[in-house]
Amino acid sequence: MIDLIDVQAEKPTYTIPVSRVGVRGIKYPVRVKRGDREIDLLTEIDIFVNLPSTRKGADFSRKIEAINEIILARKVVPSIEELSSEIAKKTLEKLNYSTNCDVSISADYLVEKRSPNNAPIIKNYKILGETHSNNNGKKTMVGVVVQGINACPCAMETTRALISKDFPGNDELLSKIPTISHNQRNLVTLKIGVPTGKSVEADELIELAEKVLGGSLYSLLKRIDEGNLVYNAHKNPKFVEDIVREIAILALEKYSDFPDDTKLYIESRSEESIHPHDAFAAIDTDFGEIRRSLKA
Amino acid sequence: MIDLIDVQAEKPTYTIPVSRVGVRGIKYPVRVKRGDREIDLLTEIDIFVNLPSTRKGADFSRKIEAINEIILARKVVPSIEELSSEIAKKTLEKLNYSTNCDVSISADYLVEKRSPNNAPIIKNYKILGETHSNNNGKKTMVGVVVQGINACPCAMETTRALISKDFPGNDELLSKIPTISHNQRNLVTLKIGVPTGKSVEADELIELAEKVLGGSLYSLLKRIDEGNLVYNAHKNPKFVEDIVREIAILALEKYSDFPDDTKLYIESRSEESIHPHDAFAAIDTDFGEIRRSLKA
Amino acid sequence: MIDLIDVQAEKPTYTIPVSRVGVRGIKYPVRVKRGDREIDLLTEIDIFVNLPSTRKGADFSRKIEAINEIILARKVVPSIEELSSEIAKKTLEKLNYSTNCDVSISADYLVEKRSPNNAPIIKNYKILGETHSNNNGKKTMVGVVVQGINACPCAMETTRALISKDFPGNDELLSKIPTISHNQRNLVTLKIGVPTGKSVEADELIELAEKVLGGSLYSLLKRIDEGNLVYNAHKNPKFVEDIVREIAILALEKYSDFPDDTKLYIESRSEESIHPHDAFAAIDTDFGEIRRSLKA
Amino acid sequence: MIDLIDVQAEKPTYTIPVSRVGVRGIKYPVRVKRGDREIDLLTEIDIFVNLPSTRKGADFSRKIEAINEIILARKVVPSIEELSSEIAKKTLEKLNYSTNCDVSISADYLVEKRSPNNAPIIKNYKILGETHSNNNGKKTMVGVVVQGINACPCAMETTRALISKDFPGNDELLSKIPTISHNQRNLVTLKIGVPTGKSVEADELIELAEKVLGGSLYSLLKRIDEGNLVYNAHKNPKFVEDIVREIAILALEKYSDFPDDTKLYIESRSEESIHPHDAFAAIDTDFGEIRRSLKA
Repeated sequence: MIDLIDVQAEKPTYTIPVSRVGVRGIKYPVRVKRGDREIDLLTEIDIFVNLPSTRKGADFSRKIEAINEIILARKVVPSIEELSSEIAKKTLEKLNYSTNCDVSISADYLVEKRSPNNAPIIKNYKILGETHSNNNGKKTMVGVVVQGINACPCAMETTRALISKDFPGNDELLSKIPTISHNQRNLVTLKIGVPTGKSVEADELIELAEKVLGGSLYSLLKRIDEGNLVYNAHKNPKFVEDIVREIAILALEKYSDFPDDTKLYIESRSEESIHPHDAFAAIDTDFGEIRRSLKA
Repeated sequence: MIDLIDVQAEKPTYTIPVSRVGVRGIKYPVRVKRGDREIDLLTEIDIFVNLPSTRKGADFSRKIEAINEIILARKVVPSIEELSSEIAKKTLEKLNYSTNCDVSISADYLVEKRSPNNAPIIKNYKILGETHSNNNGKKTMVGVVVQGINACPCAMETTRALISKDFPGNDELLSKIPTISHNQRNLVTLKIGVPTGKSVEADELIELAEKVLGGSLYSLLKRIDEGNLVYNAHKNPKFVEDIVREIAILALEKYSDFPDDTKLYIESRSEESIHPHDAFAAIDTDFGEIRRSLKA
Repeated sequence: MIDLIDVQAEKPTYTIPVSRVGVRGIKYPVRVKRGDREIDLLTEIDIFVNLPSTRKGADFSRKIEAINEIILARKVVPSIEELSSEIAKKTLEKLNYSTNCDVSISADYLVEKRSPNNAPIIKNYKILGETHSNNNGKKTMVGVVVQGINACPCAMETTRALISKDFPGNDELLSKIPTISHNQRNLVTLKIGVPTGKSVEADELIELAEKVLGGSLYSLLKRIDEGNLVYNAHKNPKFVEDIVREIAILALEKYSDFPDDTKLYIESRSEESIHPHDAFAAIDTDFGEIRRSLKA
Repeated sequence: MIDLIDVQAEKPTYTIPVSRVGVRGIKYPVRVKRGDREIDLLTEIDIFVNLPSTRKGADFSRKIEAINEIILARKVVPSIEELSSEIAKKTLEKLNYSTNCDVSISADYLVEKRSPNNAPIIKNYKILGETHSNNNGKKTMVGVVVQGINACPCAMETTRALISKDFPGNDELLSKIPTISHNQRNLVTLKIGVPTGKSVEADELIELAEKVLGGSLYSLLKRIDEGNLVYNAHKNPKFVEDIVREIAILALEKYSDFPDDTKLYIESRSEESIHPHDAFAAIDTDFGEIRRSLKA
């Protein structure tokens, strides 16, 4: 048996606290059991702790041990966000010099659904679970990423005017039919805090996002499904700002019994077809702020 | 002075030739002088050689030396493709055990232009230079990457039928006006072999691609420029297959005096707004094959 | 029922053949059944066909249909490479105007193993399956990606000389102990053609790569496991050229009954700790060429 | 002239404030003039504003106009961080409904230097400039990214013990010479707030990071330079935690006259050669907190 110095436990040369020490992108297979439904996920886990000024190194392998003990020992977890919470708890037990722990987990979430045309299709989401734990307690969030299409309301008015000029005398019809506009993939991220005693299903969040996006993208589209997806996006043209606001409203209605300090993060990224860059909007707030703003 | 064994020059344990040995993504500042115009580029260089069965290691630092001697010593090069050719030549001189050398160089190419509305704007291209050198000689290609927008001709017919159903009695008008369709960023790559004694300007290639794409994307769009870009894309809806074929025709016309063995590579990638994946088409051929196909 | 024009079936304006038309990165859940072992994989699929000069568009949705019919209908496949082969076959049946079809499938492959220290750990590989089908028949390959560590043999000799200068009189010991060198993550890709009537297990390929790399990386390392991994890498320092050659020899021995036209692709990428760029070596050949080279 | 509705200026359906609206990754060529030295940079710019509850859309093209008016009109800027500050100011003037503006600019920064061996080499950094402007005023930071190598102090002790076991009777020598350890590329990000009336040179920040890393990586290394780089990294093995703390100390000494509210962000990312994931440490604080911690 070799006797080794515990280098990390030494006193550091400079007694400065380190805000975050950790690892990103550790991959683990996780089986989620939800009621009588089991799903196998390939998760990516980020895990960070703080390091006090009095210790040289955080023990990286112990953080991984915490993950191992929970994932490999348990085999089945009730949810991604519950897993993040348990890993944060176990990590702080093992690294008793740390007071903060942040755990983020994401996984591709492929779901077999039916196309409007009733063909079996795969929809491709991401699900997210996060726990931020410190002296003041623990906050857990659950989230999803959903891909849809959005058409620009502003460009639609411009092209309507251009077509009207080229085809005079048809303004009444042109004012009624959806006109061409630039449209593009729109990536929505929706995360919500889970209050104690409440629960949030990732599938519910997907439903909210899809309602605002008018559906979500999938690989196989029959021509008529494709036509309707495009048609609907142009009947309801939306800015990224509209998308995040409409999702906020739906989240507020769906979880109307959640308290004011419930965290909410909504992002919409539009891969602008007329620009070489993406456009973003994000609402990063809590339920209370939104409720107050709507009343104002 | 320390005396060091030349480990790489040793005989390998297993006398197997290695197809490619090299490095990717070396960054160098390069000043290109083109007539009386000077441009500073930040290039990324890939460089590979073959290694015969009789030698343990290729000398990596000598390949970099070849780059250094040409770029740092010369300061100014006539073109990216000429630079790739000189580096390949110098590398094979230094690594006299190798017979093949492949050098690829790419650089962002930002050009100040005028918007249709006459505002100063920056257009954002990539330029490419490649040399493939072996026992049979040397082939040099010059290329560009251009971003545009394409609207799908197939979805346009479907939505036209859907609108026609919702707004009956307007079929004559509807058959004439551009109808809504899905549209998206389209990334075109165009590379062409440079025959001995001929030259190809990157700016000419950009012009060909922009002609087919109906312009290229830029960051600042006035509403009327934006409207026209979208309108034009829908007046001329194109599949990725159409785009690569139309560019092939324009290249063939522009360089009609180039011989049949002139290499041509054209790729169009469409970031499908209705799908979570991209669509591709590529023509990877030479002038002779296209000429024969058009005559058939 | 709406009557739609089949835009893609039209004659193209320019009768030029298109080399490749297709999509990249379609995600599908796939269950592989291998003997009595079942694994759930999240695959990414690329699929390309050629388009003859006489047709305007390839039918993208039919390619996806081919994938759907095989994956969603079958639920269980014997292997990733067999799946690529079936999708290629079905696609060419559906797109009877195409003669070539290339299908590539990759998936993360997470395997629970034991650390040298007997702790349960997750090893993180990729598995690959490819089929290239054309008029001359069909070639199928199976492959893996394995991450290890390599130490540079050349720098080791330099530092040995430097240490010897600083600590004179110890040359005998210094010549025997492994000396410091730069070491780094090394990403090995190994793909091999599967001759008719033969089969290749991905797990066998992983074993070959790990033998040459002295093991592979995993997330949790006990200090003694970590020490031994580093120690072994320095006892057997290797260039990227050494790594690809040693794997070639092991593959040739393992599959000694495979014919000369068996394709072999081996790549080693070293994330050089002393350089801002990566170093590569690749053997891209067939069994015959290697056999001949070893006899020469 | 076409008369267009200002869609963005409309009242939104839901009066919810949007935290951030903007674009990422706009590319601009910028010439920085610093004393008598001029450098051409290819910058990437992110720009975000808040949107009050009372307005439907932020005017994206006006943000780009702000960039255009400053970059394209001015041609030369004193620094990247000054540019971020001017763009933030101009944007808030143009978008008078917004109160917050965040601008981040980054650029590759390639510098011709001399190797220890006196050969001309290119060093490859990034420089960063950021401005965060809101009702309480404006904060500007300047930063750099530097690549070095770090060797692990913990694994070094383990391998020392292993070698000592294999070569008994040499403990005195073994305790003095640097032993093998895992080492890897280490990416340091260092950003510092610029107090009013003070200035910080990016080159100074690079110097601080290189002092702690024992130099930085470059493409061409003579064997003796390579040997010394590796030797030095093992004479001074460092955890990511050590690296961020040592840089913090040097920054505090260098800018000892900067006030307590000076922001400081230091990150070290180690591409672990023994793990398939990266290790991180970050200090995200201000000068006051560090000063207090050192005195405690």
